[in-house]
Amino acid sequence: MAKRSSVKSASKKAKSRKSLPKKARRSAAKAAPRKGQAKASGKNAGKAGKWVYAFGGGKAEGRSGMKDLLGGKGANLAEMANLGLPVPPGFTITTGVCTYYYANSNKYPKELKAQVEAALARVGKITGKAFGDAKNPLLVSVRSGARASMPGMMDTVLNLGLNDRTVEALAAKSGDRRFAYDSYRRFITMYSDVVLGVGHDHFEELLDHHKEQKGYANDTDLTADDWAELVVRYKKRVQDERGKPFPQDPHEQLWGAIGAVFGSWMNQRAITYRRLHSIPESWGTAVNVQAMVFGNMGETSATGVAFTRNPSTGEKKLYGEFLINAQGEDVVAGIRTPQEISEDARKEAGSDKPSMEQALPAAYKELTRIYNLLERHYRDMQDLEFTVEQGKLWMLQTRSGKRTAKAALRIAVELASEKLITKNEAVLRVDPASLDQLLHPTIDPKAERKIVATGLPASPGAATGEIVFTADEATQLKADGRKVILVRVETSPEDIHGMHAAEGILTTRGGMTSHAAVVARGMGKPCVSGAGSIRVDTAGRTMTVAGQQFKQGDYITVDGSTGQVLAGKVDMVEPQLSGEFATLIGWADSVRKLGVRANADTPADARAAVRFGAEGIGLCRTEHMFFDEERIQAVREMILANDSEARRAALAKILPMQRGDFVELFEIMAGRPVTIRLLDPPLHEFLPHGDKEIAEVAAAMGADPRRLKDRAEELAEFNPMLGFRGCRIAIAYPEIAEMQARAIFEAAVEAAKRTGKPVVPEVMVPLIATKAELDLVKARIDDAAKAVKKETGAKLNYQVGTMIELPRASLMAGEIAESAEFFSFGTNDLTQTTFGISRDDAASFLGTYTARGILPGDPFVSIDPEGVGELVRIGVERGRKVRPKLKVGICGEHGGDPASVAFCHRTDLDYVSCSPFRVPIARLAAAQAALGEDAASQA
Amino acid sequence: MAKRSSVKSASKKAKSRKSLPKKARRSAAKAAPRKGQAKASGKNAGKAGKWVYAFGGGKAEGRSGMKDLLGGKGANLAEMANLGLPVPPGFTITTGVCTYYYANSNKYPKELKAQVEAALARVGKITGKAFGDAKNPLLVSVRSGARASMPGMMDTVLNLGLNDRTVEALAAKSGDRRFAYDSYRRFITMYSDVVLGVGHDHFEELLDHHKEQKGYANDTDLTADDWAELVVRYKKRVQDERGKPFPQDPHEQLWGAIGAVFGSWMNQRAITYRRLHSIPESWGTAVNVQAMVFGNMGETSATGVAFTRNPSTGEKKLYGEFLINAQGEDVVAGIRTPQEISEDARKEAGSDKPSMEQALPAAYKELTRIYNLLERHYRDMQDLEFTVEQGKLWMLQTRSGKRTAKAALRIAVELASEKLITKNEAVLRVDPASLDQLLHPTIDPKAERKIVATGLPASPGAATGEIVFTADEATQLKADGRKVILVRVETSPEDIHGMHAAEGILTTRGGMTSHAAVVARGMGKPCVSGAGSIRVDTAGRTMTVAGQQFKQGDYITVDGSTGQVLAGKVDMVEPQLSGEFATLIGWADSVRKLGVRANADTPADARAAVRFGAEGIGLCRTEHMFFDEERIQAVREMILANDSEARRAALAKILPMQRGDFVELFEIMAGRPVTIRLLDPPLHEFLPHGDKEIAEVAAAMGADPRRLKDRAEELAEFNPMLGFRGCRIAIAYPEIAEMQARAIFEAAVEAAKRTGKPVVPEVMVPLIATKAELDLVKARIDDAAKAVKKETGAKLNYQVGTMIELPRASLMAGEIAESAEFFSFGTNDLTQTTFGISRDDAASFLGTYTARGILPGDPFVSIDPEGVGELVRIGVERGRKVRPKLKVGICGEHGGDPASVAFCHRTDLDYVSCSPFRVPIARLAAAQAALGEDAASQA
Repeated sequence: MAKRSSVKSASKKAKSRKSLPKKARRSAAKAAPRKGQAKASGKNAGKAGKWVYAFGGGKAEGRSGMKDLLGGKGANLAEMANLGLPVPPGFTITTGVCTYYYANSNKYPKELKAQVEAALARVGKITGKAFGDAKNPLLVSVRSGARASMPGMMDTVLNLGLNDRTVEALAAKSGDRRFAYDSYRRFITMYSDVVLGVGHDHFEELLDHHKEQKGYANDTDLTADDWAELVVRYKKRVQDERGKPFPQDPHEQLWGAIGAVFGSWMNQRAITYRRLHSIPESWGTAVNVQAMVFGNMGETSATGVAFTRNPSTGEKKLYGEFLINAQGEDVVAGIRTPQEISEDARKEAGSDKPSMEQALPAAYKELTRIYNLLERHYRDMQDLEFTVEQGKLWMLQTRSGKRTAKAALRIAVELASEKLITKNEAVLRVDPASLDQLLHPTIDPKAERKIVATGLPASPGAATGEIVFTADEATQLKADGRKVILVRVETSPEDIHGMHAAEGILTTRGGMTSHAAVVARGMGKPCVSGAGSIRVDTAGRTMTVAGQQFKQGDYITVDGSTGQVLAGKVDMVEPQLSGEFATLIGWADSVRKLGVRANADTPADARAAVRFGAEGIGLCRTEHMFFDEERIQAVREMILANDSEARRAALAKILPMQRGDFVELFEIMAGRPVTIRLLDPPLHEFLPHGDKEIAEVAAAMGADPRRLKDRAEELAEFNPMLGFRGCRIAIAYPEIAEMQARAIFEAAVEAAKRTGKPVVPEVMVPLIATKAELDLVKARIDDAAKAVKKETGAKLNYQVGTMIELPRASLMAGEIAESAEFFSFGTNDLTQTTFGISRDDAASFLGTYTARGILPGDPFVSIDPEGVGELVRIGVERGRKVRPKLKVGICGEHGGDPASVAFCHRTDLDYVSCSPFRVPIARLAAAQAALGEDAASQA
Repeated sequence: MAKRSSVKSASKKAKSRKSLPKKARRSAAKAAPRKGQAKASGKNAGKAGKWVYAFGGGKAEGRSGMKDLLGGKGANLAEMANLGLPVPPGFTITTGVCTYYYANSNKYPKELKAQVEAALARVGKITGKAFGDAKNPLLVSVRSGARASMPGMMDTVLNLGLNDRTVEALAAKSGDRRFAYDSYRRFITMYSDVVLGVGHDHFEELLDHHKEQKGYANDTDLTADDWAELVVRYKKRVQDERGKPFPQDPHEQLWGAIGAVFGSWMNQRAITYRRLHSIPESWGTAVNVQAMVFGNMGETSATGVAFTRNPSTGEKKLYGEFLINAQGEDVVAGIRTPQEISEDARKEAGSDKPSMEQALPAAYKELTRIYNLLERHYRDMQDLEFTVEQGKLWMLQTRSGKRTAKAALRIAVELASEKLITKNEAVLRVDPASLDQLLHPTIDPKAERKIVATGLPASPGAATGEIVFTADEATQLKADGRKVILVRVETSPEDIHGMHAAEGILTTRGGMTSHAAVVARGMGKPCVSGAGSIRVDTAGRTMTVAGQQFKQGDYITVDGSTGQVLAGKVDMVEPQLSGEFATLIGWADSVRKLGVRANADTPADARAAVRFGAEGIGLCRTEHMFFDEERIQAVREMILANDSEARRAALAKILPMQRGDFVELFEIMAGRPVTIRLLDPPLHEFLPHGDKEIAEVAAAMGADPRRLKDRAEELAEFNPMLGFRGCRIAIAYPEIAEMQARAIFEAAVEAAKRTGKPVVPEVMVPLIATKAELDLVKARIDDAAKAVKKETGAKLNYQVGTMIELPRASLMAGEIAESAEFFSFGTNDLTQTTFGISRDDAASFLGTYTARGILPGDPFVSIDPEGVGELVRIGVERGRKVRPKLKVGICGEHGGDPASVAFCHRTDLDYVSCSPFRVPIARLAAAQAALGEDAASQA
């Protein structure tokens, strides 16, 4: 199944890729459309000494392929300018300046000042304005723009260039003094907050006080004079707070804002976001300085965001929101409820507010032209930001739009059907991990739905959990193993860790493009946003809706696909997969080289495995079968037995049940390979603990509680993970392995008879450290096979192999492969022993480790390619050297993690095995790994 | 210190040596004198198709270098024959026949029969006798003889060739019919037991019955007719038991005996012995067939054993025992108390029985000539067996004599002084592990000695333990961690496992060359033999002496250096080392390349380390200092602290004490390097367990017991070995590392001031898995150093390094070496993680593993060169690649194990560190490793 190239060359490849953390590679790959990325592969496309790239007036110095240097926003603004689209002119200060700034004690390159001045002059020339000019002042926005999108993480300043003089010029020029002073007070608020460290609460306080005095209810009640008066108070408050006046020099303002944006690269939110998304600090951010256009210049002005296709469903229809007479941030902030863009959408939503198509028909037409052009140009669904200033449309941003997994699938498949991209590109377009969203349970249609509120269906899937009201509490309860729903009025970047910890998110404010909605979709978590009927009392830790009060700890369920909020726990059902899902996974299957199996212990698991397209069972853990209520007593009798004979008697009771398990599994798998692992856990796991339980069990068994307790104590271990388990049990009590082998072989004969398909069981011996161990256990298995063959007269093919889950097994893989017909890397245990970290105890420090960057991520989630990975490579190489046809797989939980699947592909494994629900993820990830390697080998 | 060759070449060497288990290599090296071994190095010196090698009549076909083919006994008989010494003629059937026999379903090579017949004819020709001849019959002994000495493990038949006709010829020829029939009945007894499977109890029963009937007290009371009558009954019993008569055909007898000897290679005793001594089954045994000479042919006949030097003290004086009118096995069996050989020895022993010098002066003179010749020839102390037949001395065996460590030292040093061997040869002559005997405690001279009995000082050293009466019980109690003294009437090969388990051995019968004495000396265990005043009731589990009864479980002490048996436990003192010890270790030091340090946590340890010649401290475990009664309270306060501030307050109390520890250590070590490891164990180890203890501790601390319990539960771990420990603590609570670093640096400054010698502390960070961990902790250490430098104005040199004790650390050694200035391999933990075996829990299966050969030995005792060893090699190689001058040591308990020391030498480590008492062992082992490598590189 897997392509065989020499392990050495695979490992070389792995090394050459090592410089970027794996997740970063993934997000980089996702963030940029493929074509753009290919262009950018020349790394740093900047010229030496060139720190500023201009755009606007129908052309630009940059282009979309220069994301590394210009950031995503800057590169795409340049690209749009080059396409001749209406982009307010401006310039981008490169990420190189950010890097330089941090490497040189917060100093700028010496050439920078002159380059900024020149670029500013160019903008003035295009706009016919001049920075700081008392008649026709140029106003600019200053925005961050990193290589990867980091929504809301860094700071932005709008309306920069306003001062006591230019505000009057703006008033005169626009003929709207109220607009001018409103803009000035917005600028003072933003600038003071972002650059001067004087928080916006100061200004809100002054505003509230003013409104109270005047008896105003809304901001719209304030007149031009009110704003002008407030501007005076605002400036005084700044003076009082910082001991210096608010800067009147636009150049001072500009450099202050530039410094603040670079500074925001290192703020706590940005650091957290980078950690969560594995974005290297070294990337830095660019700064975009752009001429202001105003969406708040009256009723013919507007601002909006749009997706070229529906980001939730993938439907090919423009999807977006806009606000008349508003500035850009107003839409995203979710403070006012926005209007629909097209008439169709307005009708569908049943809104009575006019659509953009109605209200601003010319601008709408232009937007339609542009979005079609951009989608064809970028060959992907775009996320657009625009402003209409007095009827004229200006494009402020375009980028590959974030989307739900469901939408990603549909868009990828449809773009391929439209021949905009190839099938392979479509396969590469969908983040395998995001499929998890589609595979999550949804609410059982038969379940009673105690609907208490309905909000927006912001992120699909459903989840049940205890209510928590703060991100910190979410994190704490999650650490205790509890499932929570995070309930907030609205979320902000400060809540990210809590959203991570929660099963689902519920907000009472904000739209489909609010922070909560965007982030939840990215995380693949169910989210209901804008459920306005709910009143949240965060301090009191309650929420009230329709007279019903919910306290912290009460259970609720959110259905992110319908927007419903339900009281209590609700039954869930398994997901139904769309046609696009099958299509895309089919394309993936045709290119992947890795096999994909499932870990399945029960008939239910096995059925799910088959349904999700598993090509076999890579790990059937037989101990789970031992815990069955009917059986545990016989298991305990076996453990209490004083000799081999008594053990055999107890095992004889288990044999028919165990055989029954296997017959059913083999029947379901219908000839697909099934790897069955012999009993692995320490025996004490099967015995009761605590005097009370011991007494109960002893009574039920008719056993002496003293004897039971003694045996439990005898078997107790200091480090059970490193104790008497795995093949060590099979060696001490070979009867157990014999019984299991017999059950497997008898079942294989029986199932083959019933299904007519030959069953070739793969018997797997766990925790091997030496070849001698395997040989001893293998001899017992072979004996059982011989006996069953003789008794039944049936043909019986089988394989005996081993888990490779100890460092020594990897190192001795050559010797072990002399006896083992297959290897299955147990990367859970291999990670525990290689790192010396007990998974059960790691919570106390592993969080700190990933938070502080000591480890790039949880090595139990994504395989550590350096340490654990090297042992896997060594094991594969040495094993195959001795037995070239050795079948090699992985059955740790890493088998369903896309980065780990890519590792397995590079390491030439034959297959991965993961939980049934992650099988589609593994199939897609395996395809992407194969395509990635093809691309690399062509390069 | 260590010679640097490329790690690759060292690892190649390791591989080429891999074919023999390490212990086997060692015993092979010990068993043969160097010269002989060098000759034998051509491996199998036998000619194809030649299965029989003759000797006698002044020449031989074999020689001493052919041990692999002829076994030790056969090779040395040939050598003595070639030297012209009086050896009864005979021949050796090679080990090749044994190998052939087992490889070909117990069939002999086809050429064998004819070759045996020819050799037998040659013996007849030399002796003038003929096999089976009715007039002048040739009688032979048939003895096993393996490559390595396996005393008493395999079977022997004497007087073979006797039958109803030849017994009369022997009577006529010897003129002693009683001798002839005594010999015949001995032959029937031995042959039936060994070859026919009719046990000797049958014959003892008949003998006892006869003596009872006749009213005889002793065997000597029996007349010729009595023996003749018994022979008839013996033969009838054989007929009854096996349904076939006792074989009368001498040829049938011979082939029966040969088959029995080969068969005995696979008996349980032999298998156990081989396992204990790591002798490969593939070696096989030779069979020696030799003309009988009779030590029991009257008062001018005798049999004896002698050592050319005293095997207990090494004194250069013939040392031995003989019995007049006895057959060889009588001396070794310890049934009759033997006589001294020289007059000097007789006087010294105060014996009133005549010495050999008196009784058989001519034979004594001849023996003196021969033993001097043999010692010069073999250049080593020899262990001789001889028989005097009617005044004529015959040599039956010579071999390198087993000796105590004390004797080995003295003999090696004296042989070198006598220029018989070189100093380097002397260094190679002493088994490093045996030095342990000399380093064992002896009874405190000031202790009260409640002497209850005195036996022979059979093996030096003293030991205290609970009395056990069977080997099985010794093993069981040992497994429970108890110390036992094995008390037996006499020991036999069946008792070996019990002797291994016991601290010391006491027998009530047998001499200095009895089984118990020989085996105990070999094991380095204290042994008192032949304490005849003690009556043992094994069934009743008691022993009685002078009216005092001791039960199983009562404590006794044996002093193997004086032969005393003491009641109860007795205080011990540390050993005094002889001048030879210092001389030999001095020679060793001049050739070894590995440094040797000690693991020392306390001033007492450090003083012992210096006394035993440690060149520094390789591991100072600071946690032991935390357990001090005065300190543990502050430690607990620290653990209970809610924040960094409270932790610092508690740590401030510990700082001066910790500093004091280090000052003292540095003073004792007087400028030698000291490696101090930061706190390593999980914090819960410092907290009380159980409600009662918690309540007590809480009361003493004035703390809330609930809080104490909560914290203990919070810190409890499933797998503490893989938990929150090592650098993980230093990262979570950097205050602890800071305090320790400060204590170390302040102490270094203080001690340098006091001693005038600069102290360069080596600060070691435990349990590193990633470079980032080390960097974080190192930053704290460096900060503390800076602060102390600033505060004291003193110069301060130090190094920061790390334990390499996790597989990942070995694999990432290159990266880690960027920050680490030294590595110390913690092979205890590295073995636990590489094998996935918890040392604390391994007892339940590790015994089975070594017993069944799944592992060659306990990997916690002797390093696993394949798995763990490869990780060490990888770590060294990658670390040195990045930092060529990286100092690399080992501080696991392997540091004091000779095979592991040899591994460390091969792997180019700079030093090993071990417990102070094992420092001399490591020094000697390091020298042998260096000499071994030189020899190998010259070859």
